Formats: sequence, structure tokens, C-alpha cells
Amino acid sequence: MAEENRPTVAVIGTGTIAVGWITLFLAYELPVRVISRRPDAGPEVLAGVAAFAPGLANGVPRREGLTEGLDVGTDLEKALEGADVVQENAPDDLSIKQELFARIGAAAAPGALLLSSTSKLLPADFTALMGDRGRALVGHPFNPPHVVPLVEVVGGPETDPAAIEQALAFYRSVGRTPVLIREPVPMFVANRLQAALLRECVHLVREGVVTVAELDEVVTTSIGLRWATTGPFRSFHLAGGRGGLRHWLGSLGTGLERSWQQLGSPALDDGTVRAILDQADAAFGDRTYEELADERDRRQNAVLRALAEVSREESGR
Amino acid sequence: MAEENRPTVAVIGTGTIAVGWITLFLAYELPVRVISRRPDAGPEVLAGVAAFAPGLANGVPRREGLTEGLDVGTDLEKALEGADVVQENAPDDLSIKQELFARIGAAAAPGALLLSSTSKLLPADFTALMGDRGRALVGHPFNPPHVVPLVEVVGGPETDPAAIEQALAFYRSVGRTPVLIREPVPMFVANRLQAALLRECVHLVREGVVTVAELDEVVTTSIGLRWATTGPFRSFHLAGGRGGLRHWLGSLGTGLERSWQQLGSPALDDGTVRAILDQADAAFGDRTYEELADERDRRQNAVLRALAEVSREESGR
Repeated sequence: MAEENRPTVAVIGTGTIAVGWITLFLAYELPVRVISRRPDAGPEVLAGVAAFAPGLANGVPRREGLTEGLDVGTDLEKALEGADVVQENAPDDLSIKQELFARIGAAAAPGALLLSSTSKLLPADFTALMGDRGRALVGHPFNPPHVVPLVEVVGGPETDPAAIEQALAFYRSVGRTPVLIREPVPMFVANRLQAALLRECVHLVREGVVTVAELDEVVTTSIGLRWATTGPFRSFHLAGGRGGLRHWLGSLGTGLERSWQQLGSPALDDGTVRAILDQADAAFGDRTYEELADERDRRQNAVLRALAEVSREESGR
Repeated sequence: MAEENRPTVAVIGTGTIAVGWITLFLAYELPVRVISRRPDAGPEVLAGVAAFAPGLANGVPRREGLTEGLDVGTDLEKALEGADVVQENAPDDLSIKQELFARIGAAAAPGALLLSSTSKLLPADFTALMGDRGRALVGHPFNPPHVVPLVEVVGGPETDPAAIEQALAFYRSVGRTPVLIREPVPMFVANRLQAALLRECVHLVREGVVTVAELDEVVTTSIGLRWATTGPFRSFHLAGGRGGLRHWLGSLGTGLERSWQQLGSPALDDGTVRAILDQADAAFGDRTYEELADERDRRQNAVLRALAEVSREESGR
């Protein structure tokens, strides 16, 4: 990659995810070239970066003067010239992405990393019109990418293993936690887990067991708190006491399968949607998007800071 | 309840959950009477409280000299004399609980709150042999109860509404976040959500998409972080951008139902259990139960402290 480990990054798109990436890359002092279809996107991107900057974690290399090194334009081919990394954020539409990656593949330097933020498409799909597919892969962030550490990295059958290693190293270099998804499954991992939880959330509200507000409170005061600190398998290992996961699966294995059969499979019919929306309005309908998003990100950063502090204390022992 | 809002609590049992409750109640300066079937349980309870005390949140009224006011005995009827609250933690076996609650109902003062930590049984089940069932209900904690705020409160068809209000007030008085479960469903709410997530976790490991360690890392660095701060419905409201949950359900509703159909329904067969255990051994098999539990609780407390600090800052604006 580029000299001094400061790759030049081309970011395609100016939506929320793109601006999150731009803010993050600038905070790590990388030169960033933004490509938009709209010639007047510049001021909007600058305003977006200014709005997102307070959400950056404490430890980033810089938080001020971020837009130094930022370039916004409409010419994809020109922006890709000499770019080391491309982070693409176009709409998740197969034909848009296929045509875009054909152009990216033709214009990018041979060694450039070609990363897509797609949450839905697999490399085998969006690279179909490319010549060399070896450098194209998924780098799927969790929103907002300048706050939440996870990036799911997904290669395709023709992805060069070296490109996967470089993608993992690139995301680590900007403070993210990349996890390689080893098999190409729809929705990857985090969104599948979200869908699984949400299905049961909808079921419980639909059945009147708890309201939307109560469901959210149950999660933040129990499993959310736990899973921010301890993953599900490690948690269940601890649930087994000194016998660990071995004991827990042994004693509860059949009970666990039975519990799965008792879970709901709700329909999202009109009545269910209306009940959820009414209860959601009652719970947080008086707050603006910006207020709620700020509140979320302030808390997410506070949690990340607190956990980093515990790790520092432990390693100093 | 008792004078000065300091109810006397009888805790039945000396397992992990019971000792968590005992530690919590003592930290809130409540007189605690522990009932064990074993005459030699005293020293074990004292050692357990000493081991759990460092896990108490910063804000508790006392962290030292906890065992002052603690009494351990074997005589249930004697312990219940004058007790204002009973927190029962016997094994989750229907006939054991039924017989126990018959004795509790006969011996307790008429106004006492009779709470069961059961994670499996409903009030209609475990109160079957009681005379007056109006004061008996579920107060199900999330382990460990002196650290994690949630308590699920579940009444039965014969539970006095005033007893439910008093149970909610009692748990709030010891720093917990009680949530009333409005319909009696198996596993209540938090454990159903855990089961839903775990099913997909097992599926993903079984299919080789990620390892046990990678799955845990995905969760702690994305959805765990988010759900510690922002419940699932509020998160999805934010995923809809300025259009909120209304937009999100409207545009993705059918996609959401389709995503549910793509989730796994794994079998917990021998090969799956073996793969999980092997990968779990590789991930954290070299650490003791105590080390891992301490690590979890230190982090859970750090997260709780950080979130309380953010709330204080916000309310001071």
C-alpha cells in the first residue's frame, strides 16, 4: 500500500454510511477522495463530516481540521487514479453495483483494494461484469461506521487471499474490528442475528407480553449489557458454572432445542405494524432523529471508552 | 412494608443466584435471613458474599461490613416470622416449588411479598398448593442479580395487583430495573430473546460461517454494543433515518419477513455440539470460571457506570 501506511481512499457515495466512512478515514489522516454523481455534493459532505466528528472515539489520531485532505468530485476514473483503497457505498441494487464495479475494475490501479459496503450482495454477484475479480470484496460496516467497530469482510470464489488479508489489515489500521465471514450467506452474520432477535421481539409485542418500550428496556438492562461485554457462547459457557458450556449443553441441550420450538414466527400484518408504530410513537415519537442518534452514539462511545479502560487496567496488572 | 423502607428479606437457597440476591440486599442495608437445608451453609454464604461484593455497582449504599445483619439458618418457618419479603431460589422443579410455596404461604405474614426467582415456572403452577395465592409472583433476575439490573416480574391469574406494584417498588428500591411481563409465556422475555439469538449462533457455527470466537467478537463489537445502549425497536427506528420505524417497516417489511425465512433451524446433534465445544475450548478453555466471570462482571459494571455518567451529564445540561 501507499507510503507511510497512509493509503489514499476513494469513497463512492455521500449517504449516511459513506459520510461515516469519510469521517473515520479523515480522523486517521488518510487522504480521501469522495465521488458523487451530484456536482454540488461538496458542502453537504463537509457538513456531514462536521456533524459526525463529535461521534469519533477518543483515541483517533485527529478530531480537528478533518476536512484537510478531503476532495469531492464527480469523476470516478480520475478519483481512482492512484487510489489504494476504494470503499463503495452505492445503492444496494445488483445492476448498479455490477456496472459500477466494472468501471472500478477498469480504472483502479492493479494493486488497489476494491471494497463494497453492501449489506446484501455477495462478491460473486456484484463482480460479474469485472475482468479481474481478485481484488474485489465486501467490507460491510455496522452503522455508523465511525462509531461501531465491526466490519464484516466477505470474499468471493475468485477473491485473492492476499486481498482479504490486506482488507483485514486496512480496517484494523483505522481502529475497526474486521471479522472474516468464511461462507457467503445472505445478510452475513450481524444482520442475521439482528433478524433472529427482531422476529422474537415482534412476536412478544404482537402477543401483548410487553410493549415496545418495555421490550427495549428488557434488552438494554440484561442481554444488551451482557453482549456488549461477553459474546453469546462465552456467556453460555459461564451459565454452565464450573462445568462450563460442556455441562450447559449436556444438561440443557434437549431443553434448548425445545425452547427453540416455542419461539414465535409472527406475521408482519397491518395490525401488528400498526401496534408497533403506535407503541413506538408513545415511546420515542416526541424525539427527533438527530436527538436519538446522538444519544445512541454518545452512549456507544461511552461504552467503548469504558471497556477500553478496563482492558488497559487489566493489561497493566 | 417495614419501618424506614427497610424490609426484612428471607432468601431461600444458597446457590449462585441466591448469593447474588443476598449480596445485593445486604448492600442496600436490608436485614437478610437465609434459609438453607444444610446446617453448615453459613461459612459458604459468607464466603460467597465476600466474593461477590467487588462486583457491586459503585452507587450502592454500602460495600463494606456487608454481613452485618445477615442470619443463616435451616428453619423456614422461623425465618419467615416477621419477614416482609421472601425471595425463593430453590431448584426449578414443580413439586419442590409447590410444596415450598405451600409452606411459605402458611408461615409468612399476611402482607409479605412472596417472590420466586424461577426462570421456568409460572405463578399458576408453583402456587397450586397454596391457600391465598394473592401475594405470590415471579421476580426473575438475570444472572448475576447483584450486577445486572433487569428483574422480570410475572403475576398469575390470582395475584393481587397491589402485590405486583409492591414487587416493582421493592426491586426499584434495591437499584434494579423491574419489567412487568404482561402475559404468562414460557421463558418470559429475556430468555426467549437469548434463545432466538442462540439458535442463529448455533446455525452459523454449524455451517462454518464463523467460529465460536468470531461469533462472540461480531456480537460484542456490533449488536451487543448497540443493544447495551439502545433497544432493538429504537435501533430500527434509527435505521429508518428521518422516516423512522414507519419508513423502515414500510420499505423493508416484506424484506424483513423474507429474512426471517432465511434464518437457520439447526439440530443440536453430536457433531454440532462437538464442534462448538472444540471451538469454545480453543477460544477460552484455558481460563477458569472465576477469571471469566470476573472479567464479565468488571466489564458489565464499567458499562453501567459509563451509561449512568452519560445520563447524569445529559440531565445536567
